[in-house]
Amino acid sequence: MKLPIDLHFLRRPFERRTPPGSAPGTAAQPDEEVHSHIHLIAFGPNDFEEAEVRDADDVRAYLGNYDITWIHVHGLGDTSRLRQLTSMFDLHPLVYEDILHPHQRAKAEEYEDYAFLVVRMVEVDPRLDTRQLSMVVGDNYILSVEEAGPHDRLEPVRTRLRKSIGKIRQMGPDYLSYALMDSVIDHYFPVVESFGDRLDEIDDPLAAGYTTNLIPEIQRISSDLLTIRRNLLPHREAIRNLMALSFTRYTDNTCVFLRDADDHISQLLDAVDTYRQICSDMRDFHFAMTSQRANEVMKTLTIIATVFIPLSFIAGVYGMNFSDMPGLNSQYGYEACLGLMVCVAGVLMGWFYSRGWFRG
Amino acid sequence: MKLPIDLHFLRRPFERRTPPGSAPGTAAQPDEEVHSHIHLIAFGPNDFEEAEVRDADDVRAYLGNYDITWIHVHGLGDTSRLRQLTSMFDLHPLVYEDILHPHQRAKAEEYEDYAFLVVRMVEVDPRLDTRQLSMVVGDNYILSVEEAGPHDRLEPVRTRLRKSIGKIRQMGPDYLSYALMDSVIDHYFPVVESFGDRLDEIDDPLAAGYTTNLIPEIQRISSDLLTIRRNLLPHREAIRNLMALSFTRYTDNTCVFLRDADDHISQLLDAVDTYRQICSDMRDFHFAMTSQRANEVMKTLTIIATVFIPLSFIAGVYGMNFSDMPGLNSQYGYEACLGLMVCVAGVLMGWFYSRGWFRG
Amino acid sequence: MKLPIDLHFLRRPFERRTPPGSAPGTAAQPDEEVHSHIHLIAFGPNDFEEAEVRDADDVRAYLGNYDITWIHVHGLGDTSRLRQLTSMFDLHPLVYEDILHPHQRAKAEEYEDYAFLVVRMVEVDPRLDTRQLSMVVGDNYILSVEEAGPHDRLEPVRTRLRKSIGKIRQMGPDYLSYALMDSVIDHYFPVVESFGDRLDEIDDPLAAGYTTNLIPEIQRISSDLLTIRRNLLPHREAIRNLMALSFTRYTDNTCVFLRDADDHISQLLDAVDTYRQICSDMRDFHFAMTSQRANEVMKTLTIIATVFIPLSFIAGVYGMNFSDMPGLNSQYGYEACLGLMVCVAGVLMGWFYSRGWFRG
Amino acid sequence: MKLPIDLHFLRRPFERRTPPGSAPGTAAQPDEEVHSHIHLIAFGPNDFEEAEVRDADDVRAYLGNYDITWIHVHGLGDTSRLRQLTSMFDLHPLVYEDILHPHQRAKAEEYEDYAFLVVRMVEVDPRLDTRQLSMVVGDNYILSVEEAGPHDRLEPVRTRLRKSIGKIRQMGPDYLSYALMDSVIDHYFPVVESFGDRLDEIDDPLAAGYTTNLIPEIQRISSDLLTIRRNLLPHREAIRNLMALSFTRYTDNTCVFLRDADDHISQLLDAVDTYRQICSDMRDFHFAMTSQRANEVMKTLTIIATVFIPLSFIAGVYGMNFSDMPGLNSQYGYEACLGLMVCVAGVLMGWFYSRGWFRG
Amino acid sequence: MKLPIDLHFLRRPFERRTPPGSAPGTAAQPDEEVHSHIHLIAFGPNDFEEAEVRDADDVRAYLGNYDITWIHVHGLGDTSRLRQLTSMFDLHPLVYEDILHPHQRAKAEEYEDYAFLVVRMVEVDPRLDTRQLSMVVGDNYILSVEEAGPHDRLEPVRTRLRKSIGKIRQMGPDYLSYALMDSVIDHYFPVVESFGDRLDEIDDPLAAGYTTNLIPEIQRISSDLLTIRRNLLPHREAIRNLMALSFTRYTDNTCVFLRDADDHISQLLDAVDTYRQICSDMRDFHFAMTSQRANEVMKTLTIIATVFIPLSFIAGVYGMNFSDMPGLNSQYGYEACLGLMVCVAGVLMGWFYSRGWFRG
Repeated sequence: MKLPIDLHFLRRPFERRTPPGSAPGTAAQPDEEVHSHIHLIAFGPNDFEEAEVRDADDVRAYLGNYDITWIHVHGLGDTSRLRQLTSMFDLHPLVYEDILHPHQRAKAEEYEDYAFLVVRMVEVDPRLDTRQLSMVVGDNYILSVEEAGPHDRLEPVRTRLRKSIGKIRQMGPDYLSYALMDSVIDHYFPVVESFGDRLDEIDDPLAAGYTTNLIPEIQRISSDLLTIRRNLLPHREAIRNLMALSFTRYTDNTCVFLRDADDHISQLLDAVDTYRQICSDMRDFHFAMTSQRANEVMKTLTIIATVFIPLSFIAGVYGMNFSDMPGLNSQYGYEACLGLMVCVAGVLMGWFYSRGWFRG
Repeated sequence: MKLPIDLHFLRRPFERRTPPGSAPGTAAQPDEEVHSHIHLIAFGPNDFEEAEVRDADDVRAYLGNYDITWIHVHGLGDTSRLRQLTSMFDLHPLVYEDILHPHQRAKAEEYEDYAFLVVRMVEVDPRLDTRQLSMVVGDNYILSVEEAGPHDRLEPVRTRLRKSIGKIRQMGPDYLSYALMDSVIDHYFPVVESFGDRLDEIDDPLAAGYTTNLIPEIQRISSDLLTIRRNLLPHREAIRNLMALSFTRYTDNTCVFLRDADDHISQLLDAVDTYRQICSDMRDFHFAMTSQRANEVMKTLTIIATVFIPLSFIAGVYGMNFSDMPGLNSQYGYEACLGLMVCVAGVLMGWFYSRGWFRG
Repeated sequence: MKLPIDLHFLRRPFERRTPPGSAPGTAAQPDEEVHSHIHLIAFGPNDFEEAEVRDADDVRAYLGNYDITWIHVHGLGDTSRLRQLTSMFDLHPLVYEDILHPHQRAKAEEYEDYAFLVVRMVEVDPRLDTRQLSMVVGDNYILSVEEAGPHDRLEPVRTRLRKSIGKIRQMGPDYLSYALMDSVIDHYFPVVESFGDRLDEIDDPLAAGYTTNLIPEIQRISSDLLTIRRNLLPHREAIRNLMALSFTRYTDNTCVFLRDADDHISQLLDAVDTYRQICSDMRDFHFAMTSQRANEVMKTLTIIATVFIPLSFIAGVYGMNFSDMPGLNSQYGYEACLGLMVCVAGVLMGWFYSRGWFRG
Repeated sequence: MKLPIDLHFLRRPFERRTPPGSAPGTAAQPDEEVHSHIHLIAFGPNDFEEAEVRDADDVRAYLGNYDITWIHVHGLGDTSRLRQLTSMFDLHPLVYEDILHPHQRAKAEEYEDYAFLVVRMVEVDPRLDTRQLSMVVGDNYILSVEEAGPHDRLEPVRTRLRKSIGKIRQMGPDYLSYALMDSVIDHYFPVVESFGDRLDEIDDPLAAGYTTNLIPEIQRISSDLLTIRRNLLPHREAIRNLMALSFTRYTDNTCVFLRDADDHISQLLDAVDTYRQICSDMRDFHFAMTSQRANEVMKTLTIIATVFIPLSFIAGVYGMNFSDMPGLNSQYGYEACLGLMVCVAGVLMGWFYSRGWFRG
Repeated sequence: MKLPIDLHFLRRPFERRTPPGSAPGTAAQPDEEVHSHIHLIAFGPNDFEEAEVRDADDVRAYLGNYDITWIHVHGLGDTSRLRQLTSMFDLHPLVYEDILHPHQRAKAEEYEDYAFLVVRMVEVDPRLDTRQLSMVVGDNYILSVEEAGPHDRLEPVRTRLRKSIGKIRQMGPDYLSYALMDSVIDHYFPVVESFGDRLDEIDDPLAAGYTTNLIPEIQRISSDLLTIRRNLLPHREAIRNLMALSFTRYTDNTCVFLRDADDHISQLLDAVDTYRQICSDMRDFHFAMTSQRANEVMKTLTIIATVFIPLSFIAGVYGMNFSDMPGLNSQYGYEACLGLMVCVAGVLMGWFYSRGWFRG
């Protein structure tokens, strides 16, 4: 039986921690060898430019010339350029620290010159993992930093910007940050759904009774769903903070969309809870079935053993070598003995029947 | 044993989702082939007109001429006409999206020109299912969109409008939206009650001990009740929002009626919780009974086996073929041996009795 | 074993429901055949008059002439007179509906001209049942409507009015409504206490080990206590509403008394929770005891069987009919064989002892 | 096995109740035969006088002459003198009722001329019991009424007053009431600690495996701890009320001390929860150990039985009396048969070993 | 099996308590024999001085000459010097009491002239233990008192002060108190992580089935994690108090850092909850595995026993010594008998197979 617990994944909160007591803003050297890529999209209602930048200084040129500049850093490997960017936007040391320690819970914090958001992306490839996306939402820019990973969750937003689908180019950085958050949250749906597929696959063998290896799989699914729930729940709090505290940079117009993202989270949590309930039902079903079968096995053993033990005893008695046993030499002794055995068996069976042991 | 889990139903939250990251207001093409029917009722205290409309433009004529126009769309199949209607009333893209994705939780949201409500209708035909009813409540109209389904939950309201029963024609669109919501919520009562009937049917065979196939049925009922609970609970939140946030379109007069709907939800939740408690009690009863019977079977086995095992051993000893065994040839050897067996059996039975093994 | 669930009682929430979608204020025809009795007490600090009235119109005469008129209707059978009374006091249709559907949770609602209270009376006669008492508290009257039942819970209040015990005649209708509520809540005490008696009766046979039929009884008690808890809890909410929302008709003076009623509810809930805890402890005790006894039975079987099985095998070997078996014909073969058996038995017993199988 | 439930103690909430529906301020005749003792301490920063008073009228002399007069009544037996005192201080009928019904939860209530506090003292002598201490805190007096009991929980406060330890004589009645409350709460510490001693005593025999009679003892401790928790929790609420509602008689200076009492309650609740957790851990440990031992017993039975059953069968076959059985008369038949048996046993043992049955 | 409960640790809340009813500010004589060391750091943006002081009076010289003076007392053994210090800063008696009774929960309290903080340091050396760090944060000083222990949790902060790393010398005492708190909280990370290591070590033997001694270890880890959780949780409340109540000495600037400490606590609680979930999963896995193996053992016993019992019976019958048994002397009697046995065994095996007993 394979242990249904993925311990490696649970070490993540302690990765890349600085030693206790370090000054705020100290960041551990990342062990990713991946270089950071800086992708920049600058746009206004009618303008659009897209570029890969090498140096943080290249960014400065765009900031004044376009309504909104979105600087996206992919990969945390290149701390010096990240340090450059954070000092360019004059970010708080704690923000810099949170960006580089990718084990934050989702959150929304307001600073004087910008809002700072953290969301977590989820993947199953093939085992469940989460990555951090940090966003600094300023007056005319968004700086987003993404932990390197196999899938690009933000491409649909880039496409909408490129093709100017919907009103995304007309709106401010707050709406863009919503669009990014929404894209991240929407990607939870196929992930959660994939657990539905796995539960579906378990369904048939479970009903057929081949349960041995299913239980760890069910527990693994249930445990992964709990991890998803734990990662998802703080998003709700973050979004409600954005709506309730009326961050100065978030307009009422955007809050309507945030309410929609909040709805999506509720739907996801509903689905996760439902799936966890199914896991629990499946386990209960398995135990009910196992216990019923064990019961049946037990009852059969008891009935057969209890009927034959007295009969064997009788046979044993007449197998004793006493020289002077009554009946051994009489003509119908053997038949009488067999008759006695049948009677004893009959009486016992009748008694069991009357106790209801043969009932379902 | 049939698995008590209805996985198909639990796929519903993921049906008809647009791809993650799509722009708000994008709607997946519905896979219902049913055409949408648009039914219109226009009325005032003294006027009443009812019509089937083909084109969204036909609606415009009624809007100015009657106090209130209720446009009811049945079926989500005809997105072009829905698009026409939503643009006629200038609805927010997210409202359009929510109407077309019929997996929303019940909710109440206020927009500038209208309030947007979602409620869920419940059915057992024969398996539990829910359908979405979306309502846009404007100043002089209600636009309601209903996912196609086998039963018409709103006919009683139409009858009250036609026959002018109660004050429904004198009141505003807020009261009409209450009446629709109330009709939907009231239809939960017979559904919940039907689970009472199913529990009642289980009652007798359970007490008689025919429990094998009842446990999955009980679990199925319990799981369905949980689904009802999950669908019902957000209605309470929605109604309390309507009352507490004092939506501009909802008068104090209507709030008194909403308080009544809130009471009905509390009663339903009470009944659901009670039924779930009964399910849990039935399961406990089943396990207590099974365990008692297994205990009894076990005890019988033990007593019979434990008594006969030493006796058979004695018989076995005197069945050995040693040429020189004392007693085999003595006159009353056989009788003495039988007497020994009776003694051993008696001592064992007495010992068991003294340990209380024969007690209930 | 008798099933510990009283399904009939749990059908009550669905009795006398009007069809879903009915207009508010529609009341199902009650199936009680009992006529409604109208009992009237009119009083002031120095006046007191008591009368049985036939017609609702008779009430009108008292309303102006006394400080407070208490109209008490016993039984819901006579809807026409109830309709008369509610229209005389100009009650809201929903109030009329709630009075006639006696499955409301306890609640307190304020309307413009009166407050509307619902409390639930509890009885065990012999099975647990609850009845509804609705109260309309106006400026100079109380209209109370009681579902017909075997016991009169309000007689002590009438006696206090008749004999002018305490300040009840000097105070307003709010205090009278408190007195009625208090009398209803106080009657929960003997009911809860009766469950203490039933638990006490179980105590001795449970400790003696006669547990077979006790478990369903314990479960029945636990389930009834839960029903009491469910009926009691909304009273607390209702009373706290009365105190917190400062209903215009409820003076600070009366609120001091309401705080006392709130204390009583807390004490009742404490007692109910304690009793439910005892039920749960008893069940645990039963299972611990059953499991201990099963363990003991099992261990005895194992020890006896495990010791005798090898011995019987030895006997079986020497019972084989091989013509040429060593030892069969030697002089002390039989004694040596018995000695071997004693040794084997001794070794096994010693091994079991060393494993601690004989320890408690 | 002794039942771990102390039912007598749980009857207490229903002792000395007045009949349902009695007028407020009605008090049941106490069944204590103990006379009430009235102890009086009158003091100011520089004055101190202590006296036993017989008559309530004797109290009046002190009230005007000292800054603060503390009248302490020990025992509820003498209702007439209690009635005198309550009417002297013009107390509300409900206060009088609460003092005489010593089953109140801890609480703090403000009346116009005084505050009314109830706290519960706890004792284990030898079984857990609680007693009520009611306090009326007026402008220049405290009236405290204590249910008679074996221990004096307030003596340390009297000593501090007598010897003028700390600032107790300089402060007002609010501080004195705090000192009394604090003394009562502090006495919970040794009581809770005594349960630690009892758990400690269980520790060794539990690890040694003598668990039979420990489980009820553990359950009794757990149940007593729950009772302590239930009695303690309302104190927190009462103290927080005193701090938050800013009772007019409670100064900020005293609130600092109340905050400390609140801390003590938190520490006590932490300790109680920890102990209850230990109880639960001990139970789990017991069940794990029992189940492990039962498993081991079972496995031994199975292995021995399963190995010997086929061997006995072989012996049985060669014990049959057919006249013409092959091998019986061959020279090495017996040895071959024994060899066959050894083979069968070896194969079975090997199979069991390969299935891992001998592993821990 | 070793009992997984560390009772000694749980006695700590009752250590060094003063007798119940003592005056506030009374402190029990500590039983630590360690002398208290007083370490002093005085600093401003450009000044820095560090000294060991013997007498509390030596401190006075620094207080006026430097912006901030941090007096750190290590060890509670020297009450007279602690008394001197607390009277020098004019601390409330309850603060003195809380400092000397090192069993406080983490908390933050504001007094007029200073804020008083308590945090708890955690260690595993080798068993889990916690120590108290009390801080008095005044306008130009911090007095911190640390219960003596093996590890120095505050050295990183001293280093930052010495080397002027970050802005720690430019900020006020509120920031220094944050830095100390943060260092304490950060030291929880390696402690929690060490439990991850212990769980990792259990992982392999658990999957391999050597579970006997793992269960107590798992329970010990789970119980220690709960203790950490209990110690950690009040820190969150304390920090939120500091942020929400806007203590006069805590600037907005420092609150940003407190929010970060709050985040760290959330991450720690998440990790602790995850680890506890893993413990629970491991236990479930163990029980599933044990129960599966017991089931398999049982089934094997049943099948072997149930097949051989009837065969042995047949052998027993033909071993009886009746003189006149049919078939005994016929030519193929023995072979026919063996054939009968094979048939019976075959029929039984077939029946078991058809019941699915051989399925997984």
